Amino acid sequence: MSDRVKMTVSNGIADVRLNRPDKRNALDPDMFLALVSTGEALKCRDDVRVVVLSGEGSSFCAGLDLASMGALAGDSGSPSASDAPSIMGTGGRVTHLAQQSAWVWQEVPMPVIAALHGHALGGGIQIAMGADIRIAHPATKFSVRETFWGLIPDMTGTLTITRHVRPDVAKELVFTARIFEGAEAHALGLVTSLSDDPLASAMALARDICAVSPDAVRGAKELINSRVNEDAAQQFADEQTVIQSLIGQHNQIESVAAYFEKREPRFSDASIKRS
Amino acid sequence: MSDRVKMTVSNGIADVRLNRPDKRNALDPDMFLALVSTGEALKCRDDVRVVVLSGEGSSFCAGLDLASMGALAGDSGSPSASDAPSIMGTGGRVTHLAQQSAWVWQEVPMPVIAALHGHALGGGIQIAMGADIRIAHPATKFSVRETFWGLIPDMTGTLTITRHVRPDVAKELVFTARIFEGAEAHALGLVTSLSDDPLASAMALARDICAVSPDAVRGAKELINSRVNEDAAQQFADEQTVIQSLIGQHNQIESVAAYFEKREPRFSDASIKRS
Amino acid sequence: MSDRVKMTVSNGIADVRLNRPDKRNALDPDMFLALVSTGEALKCRDDVRVVVLSGEGSSFCAGLDLASMGALAGDSGSPSASDAPSIMGTGGRVTHLAQQSAWVWQEVPMPVIAALHGHALGGGIQIAMGADIRIAHPATKFSVRETFWGLIPDMTGTLTITRHVRPDVAKELVFTARIFEGAEAHALGLVTSLSDDPLASAMALARDICAVSPDAVRGAKELINSRVNEDAAQQFADEQTVIQSLIGQHNQIESVAAYFEKREPRFSDASIKRS
Repeated sequence: MSDRVKMTVSNGIADVRLNRPDKRNALDPDMFLALVSTGEALKCRDDVRVVVLSGEGSSFCAGLDLASMGALAGDSGSPSASDAPSIMGTGGRVTHLAQQSAWVWQEVPMPVIAALHGHALGGGIQIAMGADIRIAHPATKFSVRETFWGLIPDMTGTLTITRHVRPDVAKELVFTARIFEGAEAHALGLVTSLSDDPLASAMALARDICAVSPDAVRGAKELINSRVNEDAAQQFADEQTVIQSLIGQHNQIESVAAYFEKREPRFSDASIKRS
Repeated sequence: MSDRVKMTVSNGIADVRLNRPDKRNALDPDMFLALVSTGEALKCRDDVRVVVLSGEGSSFCAGLDLASMGALAGDSGSPSASDAPSIMGTGGRVTHLAQQSAWVWQEVPMPVIAALHGHALGGGIQIAMGADIRIAHPATKFSVRETFWGLIPDMTGTLTITRHVRPDVAKELVFTARIFEGAEAHALGLVTSLSDDPLASAMALARDICAVSPDAVRGAKELINSRVNEDAAQQFADEQTVIQSLIGQHNQIESVAAYFEKREPRFSDASIKRS
Repeated sequence: MSDRVKMTVSNGIADVRLNRPDKRNALDPDMFLALVSTGEALKCRDDVRVVVLSGEGSSFCAGLDLASMGALAGDSGSPSASDAPSIMGTGGRVTHLAQQSAWVWQEVPMPVIAALHGHALGGGIQIAMGADIRIAHPATKFSVRETFWGLIPDMTGTLTITRHVRPDVAKELVFTARIFEGAEAHALGLVTSLSDDPLASAMALARDICAVSPDAVRGAKELINSRVNEDAAQQFADEQTVIQSLIGQHNQIESVAAYFEKREPRFSDASIKRS
């Protein structure tokens, strides 16, 4: 197994860290696999009462590894071109993997608290939204970044964002792909609370949760999730349909190419029909 | 076609305006038809990236044309009595038209930003809630006004209001029919943001959205809507059932008659049974 | 019938009061029965336009009667041991009764405004969340208290809390069982508005609602509820499944025993499997 994710368990609290600090914990195939396998392993850990999910280094997660973007720019000679399908999920099973790296935190039976700092962009904010509770440093930079690349937030983000903010707020953030800071994220509802030391605050909250029965806490997570996560599978299938209709089409390739060529994109009219 | 709605398209942005300024854009059968036909035409406009919906003159929309209220007061001699069924929607197909004048903005594939000023009352606030994003002048007067006339908000408002505010807030606003201003609307969640020049702010946001791929933006709208608009058809059918049980009954007629006779209404006990 | 609940009707407003002030209106079998029978009787009262629900004495409702906790601590010799199944609802029909004491306020056709002061803990906050609108004194003490006793909020609270606050907020409150005051409850969305005299404010709002047609108000409540209470029956069945898996198991008994023995609980690993 890779060392992309570190986990230590102490006093019933699992300290799980994205561990690629030199890349601001950017998401590559190894990172997706490590996140999912960590989550799957936690499903069997009856001794773990609470999970705290954070990032080593300067950021929680800066999003998809930019080195993978070559293929999305139509650059088939890019060294990472062969990774693109597995990263962006055009391959069915692998799309499931990217979605699962964010969703597994809803599936584990114990509470998951995300401690956020630095950046939570693109896939990073989607993983954060998969946690049960979010504590962020006020200067954390957030963005639902995907439309900037001609994509949509297909890592379960189209479901989870509608659970935290109103539809008009979700649309404004997704349509513009703008960057916003922790204080605004808190005001909008994307962050549960702010802290100058999010990891310490998350650990303190985890200890508070350990003061009550772990069976009751697990039962409560199951019951609240049954209300807020209804029909999730259908939504994830819809994400797969839409992302597959976008990848490789002109406006998607142009989004990425313009970025790398440091120019404004020249879009054609909307051209993709689905239903 | 009537000139009740004006549309001009420039740089991918459709500037759509309710255009009956001498009546504060009050809703009559021609206005319903013009709104729906404009929306339906936009469904085929692949060159339109964003729609900005606003009102000419002093208001966005003051609600249902008061001249139509004669029939609802049981005044069969009113010149507008024959319009009442088509306006208030007792006729099946025509109720669909009134609902569609608010809902078509969810169905068009591109984002719709409503720029609100002056008044957004009754049908006006329901059309505004049908847009994806709302930018309002802080002094805009809002009201979910229908119970004042013995009616319910049957232009898709019973669905859209529950998407923007909590059920207790929705009930308080609907049960009292009170008037509230833009700043409170923003605090409650009915307005996305405030601006002293809502039309200019809506155009600026539209330009921001034009900076990313139109196909990605359309895909994002489709996916977010699939989460927030589930079971909409059933709710609209329920609206039709309830409004048809109210129109022409004693307490509905008394609501309107008391207003025109400038006196307090004298209601009988609740008497309408549905299930 | 017991005198656990008092009701007086005047000018179309039903003033309903939990009436066990010496016990801060704690919930015992008689109180559950009195609440449900009052609500059921209101379903037929066409002359009642609005219900105001409040508590006599120093509190709205301090939650489950502590005298009933002996049985939950495994103390079979407790005088109240035989009450435990009927209070906590392990018996099918009786669980329905506890849920119904909170839910009946959604089922009555007229608006229900809860006026809250003192304490709204455990079952008390669940009954409050069953009302349509909540007005609270800023110093009211709230808590979703059940996990502290090794239980979950099984009186319809797992549904109603997700209608008023985001899932992360719901989870934080339920997982920690912490006590919070009215001002925070308002900021989080659990309270519609604050008042230094909640009962007077609730009566004033009730009179405002009486200014519009009672048939329209009932129609609006029906339509808004059809959106926000979908699939409620399934959720209530899920609550029954989870609570029955918790009661009498080690961590639940330990939660209550530690409280009565004034010591920290010693929990075993999570051990309850459901699916």
